[in-house]
Amino acid sequence: MADTEVLLADAVGARHVLAGAEIPPEYAGDESLAAVRQTPAYLVRPATSAEVADVLRIAGEAGIPVTARGSGTGMSGGCVPRQGGIAVSFERMNQILEVDAVNHVAVVQPGVTLEQLDRAAAESGLRYPVRLGEPTASIGGTIATNAGGMHAVRHGVTRHHVLAVEAVLASGEIVRSGGKYVKTSTGYDLAQLLVGSEGTLALVTEATLRLRPRVRHSTTLLAPFASAEDVFRAVPSLAAGDLEPAALEYVDLLAMAAIADDHEIGLGVPASVRLTALGYLLVVLESRSAARLQEDVEVAGERLLGLGAVDVFVLSAATARRLVDARERAFWTAKAAGADDVVDVVVPRGELCGLLVAVQAAAEDTGSLVTGCGHAGDGNVHLSVFQPDPVRRDEVLRRLFRAGLERGGAVSGEHGIGRAKKAYFLELENPVRVELMRRIKHAFDPDGILNPGVLFD
Amino acid sequence: MADTEVLLADAVGARHVLAGAEIPPEYAGDESLAAVRQTPAYLVRPATSAEVADVLRIAGEAGIPVTARGSGTGMSGGCVPRQGGIAVSFERMNQILEVDAVNHVAVVQPGVTLEQLDRAAAESGLRYPVRLGEPTASIGGTIATNAGGMHAVRHGVTRHHVLAVEAVLASGEIVRSGGKYVKTSTGYDLAQLLVGSEGTLALVTEATLRLRPRVRHSTTLLAPFASAEDVFRAVPSLAAGDLEPAALEYVDLLAMAAIADDHEIGLGVPASVRLTALGYLLVVLESRSAARLQEDVEVAGERLLGLGAVDVFVLSAATARRLVDARERAFWTAKAAGADDVVDVVVPRGELCGLLVAVQAAAEDTGSLVTGCGHAGDGNVHLSVFQPDPVRRDEVLRRLFRAGLERGGAVSGEHGIGRAKKAYFLELENPVRVELMRRIKHAFDPDGILNPGVLFD
Repeated sequence: MADTEVLLADAVGARHVLAGAEIPPEYAGDESLAAVRQTPAYLVRPATSAEVADVLRIAGEAGIPVTARGSGTGMSGGCVPRQGGIAVSFERMNQILEVDAVNHVAVVQPGVTLEQLDRAAAESGLRYPVRLGEPTASIGGTIATNAGGMHAVRHGVTRHHVLAVEAVLASGEIVRSGGKYVKTSTGYDLAQLLVGSEGTLALVTEATLRLRPRVRHSTTLLAPFASAEDVFRAVPSLAAGDLEPAALEYVDLLAMAAIADDHEIGLGVPASVRLTALGYLLVVLESRSAARLQEDVEVAGERLLGLGAVDVFVLSAATARRLVDARERAFWTAKAAGADDVVDVVVPRGELCGLLVAVQAAAEDTGSLVTGCGHAGDGNVHLSVFQPDPVRRDEVLRRLFRAGLERGGAVSGEHGIGRAKKAYFLELENPVRVELMRRIKHAFDPDGILNPGVLFD
Repeated sequence: MADTEVLLADAVGARHVLAGAEIPPEYAGDESLAAVRQTPAYLVRPATSAEVADVLRIAGEAGIPVTARGSGTGMSGGCVPRQGGIAVSFERMNQILEVDAVNHVAVVQPGVTLEQLDRAAAESGLRYPVRLGEPTASIGGTIATNAGGMHAVRHGVTRHHVLAVEAVLASGEIVRSGGKYVKTSTGYDLAQLLVGSEGTLALVTEATLRLRPRVRHSTTLLAPFASAEDVFRAVPSLAAGDLEPAALEYVDLLAMAAIADDHEIGLGVPASVRLTALGYLLVVLESRSAARLQEDVEVAGERLLGLGAVDVFVLSAATARRLVDARERAFWTAKAAGADDVVDVVVPRGELCGLLVAVQAAAEDTGSLVTGCGHAGDGNVHLSVFQPDPVRRDEVLRRLFRAGLERGGAVSGEHGIGRAKKAYFLELENPVRVELMRRIKHAFDPDGILNPGVLFD
């Protein structure tokens, strides 16, 4: 093992190799409430793709597992290191290499954060429209999980913005795939395959991302509904219609109360409405002109009332920002309230209502409390599970994932499988599909050194 | 071999197995001008996924190569059967299984054509926005090549519309991946991996496709420019700006003359302009209201003039439709004019001008004529190569593909590699990437029975 440390120090510089007890505790995991934290044998902080390649060659020769790490804001334990393994932190590979205003792309290193990229894009009148609850998430991490976020209903998920990657294979070879173009039909799309692969196929060392024009005008509507069912019935026509909202977020009564109280947000919603509304829909509209936005607000307001909203409130810019930020940070609200786990499930958006009914039944049967916020336009819900007993928690989780799959959904819409949801993934997924994934994994990483224990056992 | 015929007849019914000389000549290839046609030993026409699975098991046990076929409208010889092989035609698997207006998706069999799907979607006020020159293209074929077409600049390519597939593996196992949702982070995205894989990994037997609201108002602007360079300089700000044109098509002088003459289209462009314009830009704008469309037309017109257009003509609906249709069918115009090959190359859109300069140099050096139309907003050009001598044609083709790659592009933006461009692909692509693709191929198809000779040797 000491030999390994010397080799790693040769590769990335002795200052950038930490061993054992020198490694700060935050490197032992991410924000998952369920994944067991683990300190690696070594933490390395490479500065270049060539250094990453050297690290992987050293690891490959010694048969040491390697786990990549961005900002550590993941929700499924995907960056928890292995015992005796090497954690590769991309914190020094945090440069925006280019914002190309002609082709509307950014070329970045994986350690760049979402907020850092957005600031740089803004200087060219552009934006990177993947907006997560955690703006400090790294681009590498969002690629690993195919992160979605709040604007996916209009702009798509990380996958739709990754045009090209440079990545280091388990062999230490460096491969590039894609370019500054959307159209391609030139063999298998390796960049797309790496999106969502949670560090198990290769380590992404550079990404070319699609940018969009920065939006000039936006506003947020808050629509209380008498029931959650009413919210979900309203969502499909709003989500896919010609208004193209930038966000369509469901917030249940409990989550709304917690968000509003926790963040001291005055919503301007009268007490009479707050007492009768059991579900809320947040609708973010964007437009390139103030006049069009105003038209769209009126159309959306009428549609919402026609679809059963109790009322429609146009929030002030300050309130909207605070509420959207708070909604996006609902995980922290749930954590502060003592949630035992937070998971995300995705179903066709028309199935959200059925999913939530099944989830509530599972909660009642197991004596658990489950509250939900949801990217309703995408059929993606974040569920906070309050159930301290691990056996009952396992039961309610299994039931809610199964409820999602039975409605044509998937275990995770954006958090990933990581370690925290692996058991459910392997139990509930079709075994032919899992076996095919294993064969792909083997094609990339025959010795299994890249993030073993994530996705597969 | 006779045994194989009996087994195939048991699998799909004797009426749906043709052998040798019984096989009509159109099954020997596609629209590629370069790929050598080849009649298979057997043509089978399965009606169900289970029948496709039976065919693959029979082929696997006998070690017989299998080539899938949709409508045969491909441009790279991707569906040319192997000698002694089995061609699987999806012509009987041509049902639209569902148009789901709540989740805005269609579930279709692979033999469904683009025009068939669009007609069905229209009944629900929806559309499938992948618009190709060949509306009889099958969905299976467009998935195999990740077809792009004219609307990709706004709506994306086939990849962005494929939410889920059912596919039959070389082993005969049936696998499903994805669902009626956009967000997913649940293991490797097998559906995305199959998009663009040209029948070499699995046979897609069902696809779940994203639909969009049908557009109510659209118009087409025709802007002549003094030079091609002026067109390409204008494209980036139009392509990525807030006008979001549905199409941005470049047509060079020769192609425009051929299109207009061939289709007897009166463009309303005065002779004085036609004589001085060396390049044209077609801009299609869409909007959900007539008033917004009119505003956008005015903004676009001013921008085009500001960007150097000699003039801007708003085409009548009938002329626009005829011109767009003719532009989309430019391949047939080129073929009728005696083109020896038609290829497509993609580069970052800011590199189009440099690419076309290099292409013209290659044409001059080799005594060839190369005319071009282009999906300019996507950096994707279709080049008609007039050069009867095969050695010189090979030279000009190699030079134009290399010119694309040197500018950060790829061999094909939407036609695929197939057989026709394999030699250039293997010669010009990074060998590490090709080797990784081979390993993925092996993971899916260890005995190499699926479309051997396509992509790889």
